[in-house]
Amino acid sequence: MTMASDAAARRRSSRRERAEHETEFARIVAFSDGVLAIAITLLVLNLDVPTVSSNDRDALFEALGDLGPHLFAYGLSFAVIGRFWLIHHRFFATLSGFDGTLLTANLLYLALIVLVPFSSDVLGTYGENEAALVVYAAILGAAALVNWLMIRHALRRDLVRAEERRSTEPFGSPGALAIPGVFLLSIPVAFLSTLAAQLLWVALLVFRGQRRVRGG
Amino acid sequence: MTMASDAAARRRSSRRERAEHETEFARIVAFSDGVLAIAITLLVLNLDVPTVSSNDRDALFEALGDLGPHLFAYGLSFAVIGRFWLIHHRFFATLSGFDGTLLTANLLYLALIVLVPFSSDVLGTYGENEAALVVYAAILGAAALVNWLMIRHALRRDLVRAEERRSTEPFGSPGALAIPGVFLLSIPVAFLSTLAAQLLWVALLVFRGQRRVRGG
Amino acid sequence: MTMASDAAARRRSSRRERAEHETEFARIVAFSDGVLAIAITLLVLNLDVPTVSSNDRDALFEALGDLGPHLFAYGLSFAVIGRFWLIHHRFFATLSGFDGTLLTANLLYLALIVLVPFSSDVLGTYGENEAALVVYAAILGAAALVNWLMIRHALRRDLVRAEERRSTEPFGSPGALAIPGVFLLSIPVAFLSTLAAQLLWVALLVFRGQRRVRGG
Amino acid sequence: MTMASDAAARRRSSRRERAEHETEFARIVAFSDGVLAIAITLLVLNLDVPTVSSNDRDALFEALGDLGPHLFAYGLSFAVIGRFWLIHHRFFATLSGFDGTLLTANLLYLALIVLVPFSSDVLGTYGENEAALVVYAAILGAAALVNWLMIRHALRRDLVRAEERRSTEPFGSPGALAIPGVFLLSIPVAFLSTLAAQLLWVALLVFRGQRRVRGG
Repeated sequence: MTMASDAAARRRSSRRERAEHETEFARIVAFSDGVLAIAITLLVLNLDVPTVSSNDRDALFEALGDLGPHLFAYGLSFAVIGRFWLIHHRFFATLSGFDGTLLTANLLYLALIVLVPFSSDVLGTYGENEAALVVYAAILGAAALVNWLMIRHALRRDLVRAEERRSTEPFGSPGALAIPGVFLLSIPVAFLSTLAAQLLWVALLVFRGQRRVRGG
Repeated sequence: MTMASDAAARRRSSRRERAEHETEFARIVAFSDGVLAIAITLLVLNLDVPTVSSNDRDALFEALGDLGPHLFAYGLSFAVIGRFWLIHHRFFATLSGFDGTLLTANLLYLALIVLVPFSSDVLGTYGENEAALVVYAAILGAAALVNWLMIRHALRRDLVRAEERRSTEPFGSPGALAIPGVFLLSIPVAFLSTLAAQLLWVALLVFRGQRRVRGG
Repeated sequence: MTMASDAAARRRSSRRERAEHETEFARIVAFSDGVLAIAITLLVLNLDVPTVSSNDRDALFEALGDLGPHLFAYGLSFAVIGRFWLIHHRFFATLSGFDGTLLTANLLYLALIVLVPFSSDVLGTYGENEAALVVYAAILGAAALVNWLMIRHALRRDLVRAEERRSTEPFGSPGALAIPGVFLLSIPVAFLSTLAAQLLWVALLVFRGQRRVRGG
Repeated sequence: MTMASDAAARRRSSRRERAEHETEFARIVAFSDGVLAIAITLLVLNLDVPTVSSNDRDALFEALGDLGPHLFAYGLSFAVIGRFWLIHHRFFATLSGFDGTLLTANLLYLALIVLVPFSSDVLGTYGENEAALVVYAAILGAAALVNWLMIRHALRRDLVRAEERRSTEPFGSPGALAIPGVFLLSIPVAFLSTLAAQLLWVALLVFRGQRRVRGG
């Protein structure tokens, strides 16, 4: 037996069947859901109550209006984490098994998502500062890339149920690199126009949303 | 085949049966529960420990007493999110299937609920400022409206189990628009009297609570 | 049919069997677990990183040592919420059904538990101030009382499984009022000695813990 | 019957079979997952948005770069809690029953893990201060020790399924004390070199990670 086939056998043996480990699989999914749910909810902590004199109606309306960039960052990040959750949830629903690599990649993916409330706060505070956009785009681009690698790994190691393989393959194809690609592309764009970079992210959400509604 | 029936067929094909996708359905519910549970618990962060000299008993009692408006906002918002959770939980229990529109509407609904700890903090800080009441009423009114639209959509697309249809229909009827209606009505009322607007919300909770206890 | 029996019939009809509503029941439990888990974890936010000059080892050791009262409050509150969770979890495991009153009482119970991170912060900051102890004792006493009322209601409405009735009854008996009673008793004690009141809470935890280990 | 066998009988009677109490067991696991998921996500709150003038790109890049030690603490703590979660999740998957001691030990374990966001914040703020490293190492060392005691207790009380016993035993063996041992060892090391202590933690993660991938 060669070293390579030995390694392959070792890898296969570390594979766990979902059907035999339903509780364990359910916990991975529950833990991921928990982290995503908490990260998405912590976004609200970025909205600080403004300080005005207590009965000044116009001042409070104005101060709340000044939260506009923070509300934009909130809406964008909520939509982005929400979309990531939908993809994660559909992908995990197609799995017939899992292995150590998938679990480690999933933790790395979650570590990036958990950074979103921070990068969203930076974006809400410094929406016209290129540095803020670079951080936001880099974190989401990295999360999208890890997501792609995770799907690709599952397809290669036959962790996806046979009947779901066809519908999952597009998400692990080179074409699906477009999503992390758009985030990475938005980095140089930000140096030309911070508005253009943000519109690029919104366009990605709207466009992917439409494809999804059409069953894409 | 006309374009309309084509679109209908596409929509039907995007429908997923709960029985076939029990794990996926359970995750949607678990994610929603998670977000609602976190949002309701984050309300406690709005209560700040007062600063007084450390052994002054009367000063601390007085300072804790000054948290009254914050405690009122806490209690109101806890009751509101709790009620929203009860309704969400009963509605999802009646579903036999789900589609992309329902998932997207559910995310929008959650995005509004997650804003409640913020609007509750604004209300606790500026309880006699009309602007605070407008923000609070607008967010809850919008959440109630999205909830109504979600139930209506489920009824129209036959996503509700046949035996639960009758008990669910009232929640998607024009009459059920009364709930978002009361929140929206409280906006002009707030400009007349901030107290009256807040009493309107409490009345809504108490009245709906009674109807629910009576099996309504 | 008298009005009373009519009311009884209405109440019975609002009862839902756990076996028929397993998903709904699971959500109530999951939501309660979520709120308790978040409340217990938010306790860590009461520990603030001290400010000292960055390389001064002794100053940092000393400043961390000054967190002692906060660590005591953390440990106490973690143990208290943990114990409340164990009791909640055992009680719900014995249920064969649930009704609107139980759900409402459960929400009220959770609203009190969610206040613990706040009252724990007050206690950690003002451990020798009677006002802090009154707030802490009042919130936990109220939570313990609602818990007792919830168990009593379930026993009276036959919501507890027949085979679990005997083991559940002690928790809804007048004797079980000792737990809220000790919290309420600690309020006047606090005015004599803040230390004695805190020792009373610790004694309650240790004593109940022992009884539990002995199968009590 | 001797006192010892009496005590043993009492202990056996407090044991609950997982198969008979699946819902209760699922709640323990869900509560633990919840606490771990929240603790890991709260790590993001340690990253504070820097204050610079709003359009100064270089200043913001520099200020974000200054977050380096905080990002290191974030990554390290995320990996550590993630690893702890994986071990917890595998260990609980092997259980056939549970008892009061296991539940209490599990709560103590969670109380230590919940302190990680705090000790991680201390580490990110005072990375070259020995006191910060002592706190970090002591908390993780204690958590690893409680974890080891929990596994050992489960093995001794036959709470582990027969077919999983062999694969679980190494985690409760004297050799597995190496993990808390390395954390405790890093305390004196920190007084020689804070860098060396931190490298020791990273080495532990990488080394254990490799063993795990190899099926260890």
